[in-house]
Amino acid sequence: MSEVRGPLRTALTRRLAIRHPVVLAPMGGVAGGALAAAVSAGGGLGQIGIGYGDHAWLTREFDRAGGTRVGCGFITWMLAERPELLEAALERRPAAVTLAFGDPGPFAARIRAAGVPLICQVASAGEARRALEVGADVLAAQGSEGGGHAARGRSTMTLVPELVDLVAGLGADVPVLAAGGIGDGRGLAAALVLGADGALIGTRFWACGEALVAPGAHRRATRAAGDDTVATTVYDRVRGYRWPDGYTSRVLRTPFVARWHGRDQELTGALDRLAVQYRRAVEEEDFDVAQIAVGETIGIVRDIGSAAEVVADIVREASAALQAHRPDPA
Amino acid sequence: MSEVRGPLRTALTRRLAIRHPVVLAPMGGVAGGALAAAVSAGGGLGQIGIGYGDHAWLTREFDRAGGTRVGCGFITWMLAERPELLEAALERRPAAVTLAFGDPGPFAARIRAAGVPLICQVASAGEARRALEVGADVLAAQGSEGGGHAARGRSTMTLVPELVDLVAGLGADVPVLAAGGIGDGRGLAAALVLGADGALIGTRFWACGEALVAPGAHRRATRAAGDDTVATTVYDRVRGYRWPDGYTSRVLRTPFVARWHGRDQELTGALDRLAVQYRRAVEEEDFDVAQIAVGETIGIVRDIGSAAEVVADIVREASAALQAHRPDPA
Repeated sequence: MSEVRGPLRTALTRRLAIRHPVVLAPMGGVAGGALAAAVSAGGGLGQIGIGYGDHAWLTREFDRAGGTRVGCGFITWMLAERPELLEAALERRPAAVTLAFGDPGPFAARIRAAGVPLICQVASAGEARRALEVGADVLAAQGSEGGGHAARGRSTMTLVPELVDLVAGLGADVPVLAAGGIGDGRGLAAALVLGADGALIGTRFWACGEALVAPGAHRRATRAAGDDTVATTVYDRVRGYRWPDGYTSRVLRTPFVARWHGRDQELTGALDRLAVQYRRAVEEEDFDVAQIAVGETIGIVRDIGSAAEVVADIVREASAALQAHRPDPA
Repeated sequence: MSEVRGPLRTALTRRLAIRHPVVLAPMGGVAGGALAAAVSAGGGLGQIGIGYGDHAWLTREFDRAGGTRVGCGFITWMLAERPELLEAALERRPAAVTLAFGDPGPFAARIRAAGVPLICQVASAGEARRALEVGADVLAAQGSEGGGHAARGRSTMTLVPELVDLVAGLGADVPVLAAGGIGDGRGLAAALVLGADGALIGTRFWACGEALVAPGAHRRATRAAGDDTVATTVYDRVRGYRWPDGYTSRVLRTPFVARWHGRDQELTGALDRLAVQYRRAVEEEDFDVAQIAVGETIGIVRDIGSAAEVVADIVREASAALQAHRPDPA
């Protein structure tokens, strides 16, 4: 696919042959084929979020993307438990594969051998160095303000310029995406002037009609403020997901989270009962209990969008913000 | 004082009659008269950080600023314990007064009656509404990536656009500063495109020769990475400072912090001994123990600067970043 020029061309748009420097965060179980295809159709790069999905899920969602060129993303430590999913994904000739949360080393060579661009999501200078070592084509510098899982610690505002300098200092020709806390065109413009080559965006696309999100969750989230999120391990515990130490997941502060966050010992004692309660709540779409995994930026998301239009809005707004702040001659 | 035009004019530069949209964070005990005067001389707004200082300290530092127009900042809950310091400050006809960490209500009317612009540092939508209610002239939207004290919770990348929208939605004519995580011109450019009217900058000025910082602390900090900071209450506890719940202070992870962070009960048991150890370490400038209060952005601060030159560098770099990202015609 050849590049179609957009107003915000960067090393990333050239590397991935996309029109706009906007990449869909491969949100596990939320970014299915329909959402990924819509973001790509809008000129960004859509990515299917494999997450905890199995082979059947992967197959279904790639099918749903139809012929549209999309990438996909894995939770690296989950992929290590069923590496056959990588082969299934590569058979679909994805536009990119993102590896997040864990050592990309065991999978990097296979992805590169398939001729597929490797995006490594990193949350520290150490992780960035490791990603460059194994041949990442793109780094996504992830601050902890984003929705869903993140390493505790850094924010996008400081991580991006530090990793941009790290990449430049090593002489690596690797574009950097800013990830976490970017919900509109102002955020994309900020990413670019911080030195990034584009933005990896989750929450704003979570709040799109094409996302695999229940209407009840959408309704609650578009009324929430940024102050209503919390980074917690509560939902991983009741779902039995064994995330490594140091990771939390940012979610809306539901009544369930308000009850159990910070009460680890008590939660351990009630875990069997809560696991049952949680599964039932998901089935019944009861969002007093079920999780709503969005980032701080939900505070500026006031409607449920259509993904291709959201891409266009973000690019238009970013262009306007950059145009409006052209410095005067000193 | 009339405004001298710089390349980045905003509602803030007009409101405060300054050349550049760069405001020195009033870091308690660190931003003395010399640093504040140097930032103002460079075209920004310097602010003396009263912090835990007493009347003698305030007098000495305003004297050191000489005739240069500077503002000053208070920790609001500390000011409540000795409100006479506000009168002493207002007698010096400051260019602005910043109130941070607590309800500005009890002091706002007095500051406004003196004809002094009131800057309220806020960390949530609720605090922003309260600041507008009491008549703040400027809001500083503070993310928790900054150095020293911050409310746990928000990041600059998401808080700034959300509060900019809040102010606009209320029809308030109040400029917004982005605070936390801004260490160079890329950060200032990001603040502007996010919708802020300028940046409140601490760490980069902490790392200036005019700051009240020991050379040993400067040496360690300029070798540190952004991943080397931690938000902790350890130093407040050993110093006996009674910060309200919900506040932590971001500092370099010294051996002392590594030993005591997260071990609250054990720390309580050893508090008398540790308080003595801490005071001795400060006297001896032993920075294995004494605190180095810097933000995540220390990872891109590699030298000790001269404050007026730092202002010029930040403005030049911000202008270049904005100029470089002008969108192409679509």
